[in-house]
Amino acid sequence: MKITAAVIYKSIELIRSQSPIVHNITNYVVMNNTANALLAIGASPVMAHAQEEVEEMVNIASALVINIGTLSDSWISSMFKAARQARKKGIPVILDPVGAGATAYRTKTARDLINNEPPSIIRGNASEILALYDDNSRTKGVDSAASSDAAIDTARKLNEIHKCVVCVSGVTDYIVDKEKIMKIKNGHPLMSKVTGLGCTASALCGAFAAVEKSSFTATVEAMAVMGIAGEMAAGVAAGPGSLQTHFLDDLYCLSEKDVSKRLKIEE
Amino acid sequence: MKITAAVIYKSIELIRSQSPIVHNITNYVVMNNTANALLAIGASPVMAHAQEEVEEMVNIASALVINIGTLSDSWISSMFKAARQARKKGIPVILDPVGAGATAYRTKTARDLINNEPPSIIRGNASEILALYDDNSRTKGVDSAASSDAAIDTARKLNEIHKCVVCVSGVTDYIVDKEKIMKIKNGHPLMSKVTGLGCTASALCGAFAAVEKSSFTATVEAMAVMGIAGEMAAGVAAGPGSLQTHFLDDLYCLSEKDVSKRLKIEE
Amino acid sequence: MKITAAVIYKSIELIRSQSPIVHNITNYVVMNNTANALLAIGASPVMAHAQEEVEEMVNIASALVINIGTLSDSWISSMFKAARQARKKGIPVILDPVGAGATAYRTKTARDLINNEPPSIIRGNASEILALYDDNSRTKGVDSAASSDAAIDTARKLNEIHKCVVCVSGVTDYIVDKEKIMKIKNGHPLMSKVTGLGCTASALCGAFAAVEKSSFTATVEAMAVMGIAGEMAAGVAAGPGSLQTHFLDDLYCLSEKDVSKRLKIEE
Repeated sequence: MKITAAVIYKSIELIRSQSPIVHNITNYVVMNNTANALLAIGASPVMAHAQEEVEEMVNIASALVINIGTLSDSWISSMFKAARQARKKGIPVILDPVGAGATAYRTKTARDLINNEPPSIIRGNASEILALYDDNSRTKGVDSAASSDAAIDTARKLNEIHKCVVCVSGVTDYIVDKEKIMKIKNGHPLMSKVTGLGCTASALCGAFAAVEKSSFTATVEAMAVMGIAGEMAAGVAAGPGSLQTHFLDDLYCLSEKDVSKRLKIEE
Repeated sequence: MKITAAVIYKSIELIRSQSPIVHNITNYVVMNNTANALLAIGASPVMAHAQEEVEEMVNIASALVINIGTLSDSWISSMFKAARQARKKGIPVILDPVGAGATAYRTKTARDLINNEPPSIIRGNASEILALYDDNSRTKGVDSAASSDAAIDTARKLNEIHKCVVCVSGVTDYIVDKEKIMKIKNGHPLMSKVTGLGCTASALCGAFAAVEKSSFTATVEAMAVMGIAGEMAAGVAAGPGSLQTHFLDDLYCLSEKDVSKRLKIEE
Repeated sequence: MKITAAVIYKSIELIRSQSPIVHNITNYVVMNNTANALLAIGASPVMAHAQEEVEEMVNIASALVINIGTLSDSWISSMFKAARQARKKGIPVILDPVGAGATAYRTKTARDLINNEPPSIIRGNASEILALYDDNSRTKGVDSAASSDAAIDTARKLNEIHKCVVCVSGVTDYIVDKEKIMKIKNGHPLMSKVTGLGCTASALCGAFAAVEKSSFTATVEAMAVMGIAGEMAAGVAAGPGSLQTHFLDDLYCLSEKDVSKRLKIEE
């Protein structure tokens, strides 16, 4: 099936009508933004990280988003517990390996999660994706220092081994699955001046995966919507402060026409 | 005493002139918003959760707000410690049972707090309030899936047993105390698309309870102000992003005329 | 060297071109704002607090900012570990003693950090600075209840003993180093109605110290930029909500003309 603006908008409408629960175990920095972006697109966000409740929360959720942006040992245990339960229950698991490559702790956690509880979707910048497989890569803090092209090979390997869809986000977003690769050229440079928009993209993958069976299609849809709302917001923003405000407004108001007019997708 | 716009505005002026310290033990998602809303109304927010310091912080505070939105065992211990100290000291304790009913861990924590350290005020949505007493209720994540009417009976029972004022918030907010029940019909549907405005309402209950002796009056005032600032913000907002911005601005600028013109209160 | 608008703008340009990594161990309330302010000025923020990774994160950072706003024991261990590593590596360490004086736990933590791992820069309000040395001081929650003048003597003592630059922030900011004292009269009262702008100021000290060798100059630059962006934002804001949005926009767009036109600095 070709992923058109109409297909994407159909999923948006499903999210809006079903408001699926998206369970997030995410970092302290972006929790608020992530929850607000999920609400704006129409989903119902839940944040819960306690080992005592993550499995139960997964049981009422339609997708699980794991983000390793601010780690500690007890949170890692919860991430494993939640991922295991989500896979058992059959709901999609999205992994955002924030800062993988920057420290051994993050790289190891991300790899362990992928090896033991392979997610449905992995979304990261080029440095992070490289770090999931290549021992010689290096992340510049949590921002990417690598080229997207270099990361696509790693994405293919991860997909081959773990069967997960991998999104390498950047100026162009690459969504990799089996023989397929999709490029999305939406978005705006100012988006990189707002913290956690990558994390928001991963959360949106959760919302779309909750209503769209194909992880590949869901990821393409989420990244397209992210880029479109981001460029709409950047077009009227005076800087990164107002971009955030407009972004949520645009996500909430997004029309089929917005999507069809702006969508820049390439196979 | 009848709760009029003049009475409400009097309390706002007291908050602005006294800037009472409101101690919050709250969830990661909303800490920033909660603090900003308290500052905007004129209070002085403090966030502290370490067992080593919560009692001391309570000692300099005029109200304590406990919110179970993102739990862990050490935070629960701090909540009990702080609640005990607040009751000992005689300052109002406000409980927000976020997500009660969604997981056993949350339901148990909320009930244990209520049974052992009965708060002055409980504020939650219908599902959450139901879960505090009714074993057959069910929360849809942290959003309410139950009707407010159903929760009012539970509110009455909680009030009867624990003597606390109970607010069931929703399209109409119900504030229940002894023989009394007050309805507030302010607010706007767009408010449900911003994360943590319920938590903000609970924090505002803390600010009003810090300057108004009657927990019932304080809760009515807080919920009215919440709804009024929310509908003012929604009236000019382009979506949930700008609603947040306007909400804080409106809370800060709220005049007696705003309150008297918009107040929709019913006994 | 005299600190002029041109000197300040030169440092801004260095931050924008080098985008130094600023490692923050900071409180839950302000993490998002702090990260966004650092991005807006051109730096590359990293938030990491796990004992397993703080040293490694310090190794890729150009400055370390420690903020004690929401403490717990494991975070305190990480703060010491990170500070030790930063000093060993020779990158500047900025300490924000949020709420020192309000509880013994905060006062002790701040003092222990200063005594064992003296930072390059300490930035706090008058009450907090006083609490770092004077056992009879008292903080009103996390807001200052003391006069700046009273805190300047303490700042001098701290500087004498620990060789660190001390900034007492308030209506006038005082930056104290050896024989020198600089006053900055930029800023706006509305800034005190937004949570965490003090924390943001400390984070900006980290960004400037990453590109400017003199801790004194870096602190003066950061506080001036903070005050200038703050008063620009307040000048067009309708309240504390829109102030936040404008502040980030203004920080991002700040021109040399903005700095030279508004800079109010006195020796």
